[in-house]
Amino acid sequence: MDAVNIQERTLGVNFDKQKQANVVLWAPEVKQVSITLPDKNLNIPLDKGESGYWTLTTDSIKPGDLYFFNLDNKKQFPDPVSLSQPDGVHEASQALDIKSFNWTDQNWKNIVLKDFITYEIHTGTFTEKGTFAGIEEKLDYLVDLGITAIEIMPVSQFPGDRNWGYDGVFPFCVQNSYGGAAGLQHLVDQCHKKGLAVILDVVYNHIGPEGNHLENFAPYFTEKYHTPWGDAINFDDAWCDGVRQFYTENVLMWFRDFHIDALRMDAVHAIKDFSPVHILQEIKQQVDILEQQTGRRHYLIVELDLNDPRFINPLEKGGYGMDAQWIDEFHHALRVSSGQERTGYYSDFDGIASLAKAYKDAYVYDGAYSDHRKKKFGMKATENTGQQFVVFSQNHDHVGNRMLGERTSELVSWEMQKLMAGAVFVSPYLPMLFMGEEYSETNRFQYFVSHTDPELAEAVRKGRKKEFEAFHIEGEAPDPMAKETFNNSKLQWELIEKEPHKTMLGYYKKLIAVRKQQSALNVLNRKELTVEFNADQGTIVIYRQYKVQDIICFMNFSKTTQKISTPVYAPVWHKLLASSDKQWGGPQDLPESVTGELLLTLQPESFTIFTNQYE
Amino acid sequence: MDAVNIQERTLGVNFDKQKQANVVLWAPEVKQVSITLPDKNLNIPLDKGESGYWTLTTDSIKPGDLYFFNLDNKKQFPDPVSLSQPDGVHEASQALDIKSFNWTDQNWKNIVLKDFITYEIHTGTFTEKGTFAGIEEKLDYLVDLGITAIEIMPVSQFPGDRNWGYDGVFPFCVQNSYGGAAGLQHLVDQCHKKGLAVILDVVYNHIGPEGNHLENFAPYFTEKYHTPWGDAINFDDAWCDGVRQFYTENVLMWFRDFHIDALRMDAVHAIKDFSPVHILQEIKQQVDILEQQTGRRHYLIVELDLNDPRFINPLEKGGYGMDAQWIDEFHHALRVSSGQERTGYYSDFDGIASLAKAYKDAYVYDGAYSDHRKKKFGMKATENTGQQFVVFSQNHDHVGNRMLGERTSELVSWEMQKLMAGAVFVSPYLPMLFMGEEYSETNRFQYFVSHTDPELAEAVRKGRKKEFEAFHIEGEAPDPMAKETFNNSKLQWELIEKEPHKTMLGYYKKLIAVRKQQSALNVLNRKELTVEFNADQGTIVIYRQYKVQDIICFMNFSKTTQKISTPVYAPVWHKLLASSDKQWGGPQDLPESVTGELLLTLQPESFTIFTNQYE
Repeated sequence: MDAVNIQERTLGVNFDKQKQANVVLWAPEVKQVSITLPDKNLNIPLDKGESGYWTLTTDSIKPGDLYFFNLDNKKQFPDPVSLSQPDGVHEASQALDIKSFNWTDQNWKNIVLKDFITYEIHTGTFTEKGTFAGIEEKLDYLVDLGITAIEIMPVSQFPGDRNWGYDGVFPFCVQNSYGGAAGLQHLVDQCHKKGLAVILDVVYNHIGPEGNHLENFAPYFTEKYHTPWGDAINFDDAWCDGVRQFYTENVLMWFRDFHIDALRMDAVHAIKDFSPVHILQEIKQQVDILEQQTGRRHYLIVELDLNDPRFINPLEKGGYGMDAQWIDEFHHALRVSSGQERTGYYSDFDGIASLAKAYKDAYVYDGAYSDHRKKKFGMKATENTGQQFVVFSQNHDHVGNRMLGERTSELVSWEMQKLMAGAVFVSPYLPMLFMGEEYSETNRFQYFVSHTDPELAEAVRKGRKKEFEAFHIEGEAPDPMAKETFNNSKLQWELIEKEPHKTMLGYYKKLIAVRKQQSALNVLNRKELTVEFNADQGTIVIYRQYKVQDIICFMNFSKTTQKISTPVYAPVWHKLLASSDKQWGGPQDLPESVTGELLLTLQPESFTIFTNQYE
Repeated sequence: MDAVNIQERTLGVNFDKQKQANVVLWAPEVKQVSITLPDKNLNIPLDKGESGYWTLTTDSIKPGDLYFFNLDNKKQFPDPVSLSQPDGVHEASQALDIKSFNWTDQNWKNIVLKDFITYEIHTGTFTEKGTFAGIEEKLDYLVDLGITAIEIMPVSQFPGDRNWGYDGVFPFCVQNSYGGAAGLQHLVDQCHKKGLAVILDVVYNHIGPEGNHLENFAPYFTEKYHTPWGDAINFDDAWCDGVRQFYTENVLMWFRDFHIDALRMDAVHAIKDFSPVHILQEIKQQVDILEQQTGRRHYLIVELDLNDPRFINPLEKGGYGMDAQWIDEFHHALRVSSGQERTGYYSDFDGIASLAKAYKDAYVYDGAYSDHRKKKFGMKATENTGQQFVVFSQNHDHVGNRMLGERTSELVSWEMQKLMAGAVFVSPYLPMLFMGEEYSETNRFQYFVSHTDPELAEAVRKGRKKEFEAFHIEGEAPDPMAKETFNNSKLQWELIEKEPHKTMLGYYKKLIAVRKQQSALNVLNRKELTVEFNADQGTIVIYRQYKVQDIICFMNFSKTTQKISTPVYAPVWHKLLASSDKQWGGPQDLPESVTGELLLTLQPESFTIFTNQYE
């Protein structure tokens, strides 16, 4: 039971080719274990094996059966590695044969990392249905938009049916109200059919506050470290081997049994592990082995608030081997450039200059003193390529963690929305959209939960209030527990046929197309990128180059027109896109082409790209 | 104030060439600071500078003056970087000009690391005087013994005058009752005159429980991590830069102003730091710069309970750059081999086989499951050389943390004492003795403190009791607070003239001389070492080689004679040392030389070395 079996799931209830159930439970400090099938009136003891693993092979359990584990004949709990919780987090687990899904994606090859253009989806609010089936209905739309990957916010079973997903308590179980394991498998299969990769958001830094039964089975948590969400997951204390196997198996399951193309691991800075081999390194090693088996590339992307390239450096250089990481600092710099008040974590960013640094160095803080953090922060990521960084102008956090959950569509002008989108797509990084931003969705995306524990619900309300105080925001937040808060966060698909949303959608399509077509934009080489900025003017100029193609991009974040010139000469400069053109609802068309030097009058809050050569 | 000044102390009260006092205090969240000189009836405000540093230059403070810092006109505290606390931890600091010491060691070159043969000293109990001056009187004895370095247990000011040193609360201040800063400087100067290096034990993982005023000045601690001694030192949380500077300056001060040759850093596994640059890496970087200035090598040695070679790997390989580490596992394996009951942390070690592994691989646990720790532990230290590991058959911890503080002299037979010493010196690692072991001191080394806080004293008593319960030891521990406990732990120097102590001293001298003279023993190349063991016989054979010299060492841990042969042929095998010879109080002489194959009858509990060539 020591080594992780990458060929198939070893933990939980699994069915072999003879359809026998193999039951494995890790409960090292428990004296007696049995599995109870309430509907069959059965209770079968498990045998204690090595390292605290209990096992059973039986014909009595069939796919679809409900079961509990019975510990020391005292209490029964659902399975820590349950694949299905048809009646929610407090009730019985359900045995599933996830290997029985009929995949049709045999010819699917994963997209190469540099080509990921990601679209972040919250399943529950993306469509009226709020399910994986709902997402499937929008796949053609997404393909038409030009994105290449969808990223699904966490789907592990959470309490109730309204949650962002970060309160999940069954890491192996797909939320029943979304469509469960089979629903997710079907969605992934459909995505692959349409050429879309699927990124799944997973949470390995904490377990949600309601319905967490893990501690009854084993020391999944340690008091050695504290996280914002309580005791840390036990990755290096006594009994950590079983916890490490739990999460390593989880990674392998998504790739192997759900054909997920990449994981986005939530807040890995809150994974505290002083082992000689960090859990992320162990995960990477296992995934490397799995890839040889599947013949597919499986990417590991992390949310990281440390500005520490060790996480994304290769294993052979002592790194953790992660393929890419989110850079929130790009977002913060962009938001401040677009007028966001410098409160809370935005206080560290001065707009244009920070954004220019992010374009070139990825990390804005790479050793400098951060006044918000009260310490020197980060180090240089000199050796890392552009495809190792994911950028965005908004995401679920930066929208939903605002007290009122306003999207940029509500916060900035029409012109600025287009400029912000351009700023993301001209970066040498992997762009990500938050669902609905492409047509300027007006509904807010708010924080919602459906806890059943009233004390917890109250604690959530209070906790959020405290968070907003850091931003000096007053007023009343929407009630996270209210069903309207959830419903009000749903996308309004009817908007895409209406102006001005239709125009914004057209603009995004064009922007994505330009990014994909122009080599100088999609070869993510930071070394051939030059940035100039003028903080007084509020302008940034970006030069990108690939072979004989030059691309020059102008951004004017100010509220006035700005005259700008570049000393770069070309026989003809062709306009690739100008956000201020009338077709995008802007005030005035820029010329289609310019000869010689580029001398332009930029409209307020505008984004413009020229090239010396079409591709 | 950002970069550490390696040229001289920047923090605290320091005197420049014009004998003006430069005062620097880090107190980032305090609104007003002044320095108060009670004897001069003076109170002078400091100016607030960058990053929370307060400064003052004045003629009014002279070396010898007593002072406090006055925070927000509310409370006064001694200086966090005080160099002298003449009246103890709760009273005024005293300004010192530590640069005024007249050094005579200009020609001293540090010993190369591989030649360190270390002697661990607790200043208070080493001599009747219990001071640095007391140590000086024994230096000729130590030189004659053959050791090359003394290691002084922590000397930072602690409450009262009886303490192991790990309760120090003024990291920059040398314990007044030991002789203070000038006393330590004089001792180091004398050591260098006699060719001895000085290692100082320093504690960077916690601050003692009584007399800790640091928190009044700045956030020196963080709640993010827990250590066995409470909240961890803040090396990576808000305001950590000042804490990092505090400790980095401390390292530099010992090397630069006290001419210390090496630091032994206590329990660095309890230093919790997730910064991109670990504090140990930062220390190493600073020491590298200092070395270029002093022209001397300054070694960094760590106590480490992680079996993680990252700590001792070079900076350029992503390591922390520490020169060497203690390996307690060698000790544990040796103690179990010599009959120690397998309780507590000894339970993981099976004696002979563990010891054989430690000889070859340094770490006994390098990835295997540890039943005591309940997890897989450690990783291979393949790339690290023998001089990176410090070994011993006992030290202050493993003696003093026994309930009764028994040395091996009390626990094992006369013959076994000699075998254990041999086992240490034949290793390819750096040997260390604990004061008195070389003449089989019979006094125990017990745990003693002189806290003035009665609640704390009671907590210490209780804490130790709990610790012993883990070892299933019953009975009454000596009272740590009692002065007799301290006095009973002093060495009895009169013993060295008496038998059998005189014989043991002779044996140790011979053993050390053999180690120093034989190249095959003092070239610390693990790759040319071979170990064979027979767990049934209780024997280990070690082969070491250098150029044309072969050395074979036989250890018989059993209580019966063992016939042993090796297939290695030489025209003549010369006996270098046999612990069972009559001159060392043993039962029977082994032959001085053997021709052809080595066929020997080993006496019970004996240690024997033969070579094919004298050096």
